[in-house]
Amino acid sequence: MKILVVSAHPDAASLTNALRAVAVAALLAEGHEVRVTDLYAIDWKSAVDRRDFPALPASERLRVPAASGAAFAGGRLTQDVVAAQADLLWADALILAFPLWWFSMPAILKGWIDRVYTFGFAYGVGEHSETRWGDRYGEGTLAGKRAMLVVTAGGWPSHYGPRGINGPIDDLLFPIQHGVLFYPGYDVLPPFVVYRADRMDAATFDRTAAALEDRMRTLFAIPAIPFRRQNGGDYTMPAMELRSEAAGPAATGFDAHRAAAPEAEGSIRGSRGTSSGEALC
Amino acid sequence: MKILVVSAHPDAASLTNALRAVAVAALLAEGHEVRVTDLYAIDWKSAVDRRDFPALPASERLRVPAASGAAFAGGRLTQDVVAAQADLLWADALILAFPLWWFSMPAILKGWIDRVYTFGFAYGVGEHSETRWGDRYGEGTLAGKRAMLVVTAGGWPSHYGPRGINGPIDDLLFPIQHGVLFYPGYDVLPPFVVYRADRMDAATFDRTAAALEDRMRTLFAIPAIPFRRQNGGDYTMPAMELRSEAAGPAATGFDAHRAAAPEAEGSIRGSRGTSSGEALC
Repeated sequence: MKILVVSAHPDAASLTNALRAVAVAALLAEGHEVRVTDLYAIDWKSAVDRRDFPALPASERLRVPAASGAAFAGGRLTQDVVAAQADLLWADALILAFPLWWFSMPAILKGWIDRVYTFGFAYGVGEHSETRWGDRYGEGTLAGKRAMLVVTAGGWPSHYGPRGINGPIDDLLFPIQHGVLFYPGYDVLPPFVVYRADRMDAATFDRTAAALEDRMRTLFAIPAIPFRRQNGGDYTMPAMELRSEAAGPAATGFDAHRAAAPEAEGSIRGSRGTSSGEALC
Repeated sequence: MKILVVSAHPDAASLTNALRAVAVAALLAEGHEVRVTDLYAIDWKSAVDRRDFPALPASERLRVPAASGAAFAGGRLTQDVVAAQADLLWADALILAFPLWWFSMPAILKGWIDRVYTFGFAYGVGEHSETRWGDRYGEGTLAGKRAMLVVTAGGWPSHYGPRGINGPIDDLLFPIQHGVLFYPGYDVLPPFVVYRADRMDAATFDRTAAALEDRMRTLFAIPAIPFRRQNGGDYTMPAMELRSEAAGPAATGFDAHRAAAPEAEGSIRGSRGTSSGEALC
């Protein structure tokens, strides 16, 4: 299989980049093809601006969805974005490796999403009407592929637990896992999160590396997070609210967008993509 | 009073920048002093990297917390960051105005947070021990000041409602409102969110502008979101989990970090900061 690894840490010797190296080595050992994009090494341009749309007349306003949609459709995106989109289409799986800065991605990685996820590629895909709001949340350009986060965090696990002061890690990552990865179609795997990242001794790193290697070996085998598909019948249209039949009448919040029985749902969803047989090839 | 408005949209004629202009005019009409930072106009550098720490020897690893803490303490941060920190210290209130891109801030604004929020300024403040984990979440450098988001979003209100497909807007904004604003001490006001931002006619804009003007007039009067203070007795140390006495034994998730009675708590918290008399001066 083919895997794209995108990393975002400015220090080549950082834990993020050490874990990236562990992941890449494990994937290569499984016989996979791997491409790595180190956003700092290529000095990725973060901000969406007029320079991204050289064909846009100076007299015209920069409406980002319209401009990016026109540039995508007309083959006039900048070369860095074209190459990144080609990498995403090439890969069967995407891994994003980054430190959790202020409870989200570093700006350089957010800027990779903002610029590469153009209209027509990652959103504005499929029929948009009052009865069908496009192909998204489980459908779209990247459907059938898998995605996973590798995240380093400074605090303790309890700080990110169900009652921890920072908020539960799954909820902090929901805007990324659901809003960035599931949105254009990815099956999203449980994240690999490393806590106390600034206090890691050699023994802990070895244990962490072994656990990450195991996750890489099972990349195409383990069940995805059972996020509900927009067009799978669980949502009303066009209000796009959860139906009572789907989540119960009282369920609210991020959790309600995950189906109730992760294991069963996960194995069903897994069968949509790659079989576990292929996973270990 | 003094207000810093930071905006992040690449189109000068965008809804975000139009709302910024409405807010600034309303604040000036109230007699406030206002500073505006348009991150696109100043071509803000987004990525944290070695260029931010010119005093760091080339032979040394870039450990971001250590490097930013040393640069902050030694007065060796870059001039753009020094100026932004001075603006934050100057202002009694901070307003961040931005379009919701992929359920978070545009990269250029995330990069403003990543770079301006140095160790010693926004984190790593106060005593750190097993019994006190610093001054944060309601305490810290920016305590006593107020902060508020002005956000434009493309979808419908129902899509961001309690059962909406994108997730509830308050939860999507939690990593920013709690993790970025409350963390260094701000009292965080309810956000001003505009939906269907790409389909706004003149009449809707006028209604929206009037509502925003009202929010600007009450900037120092309305209750803040009653996030629980880290050192207010609601959390165990050092695990930093909610005590049963504070939130009940079963409460989990983002909501549990807001006190149960917003109105009552809000008015108590409001009294810590600026009185409503000053608000309308």
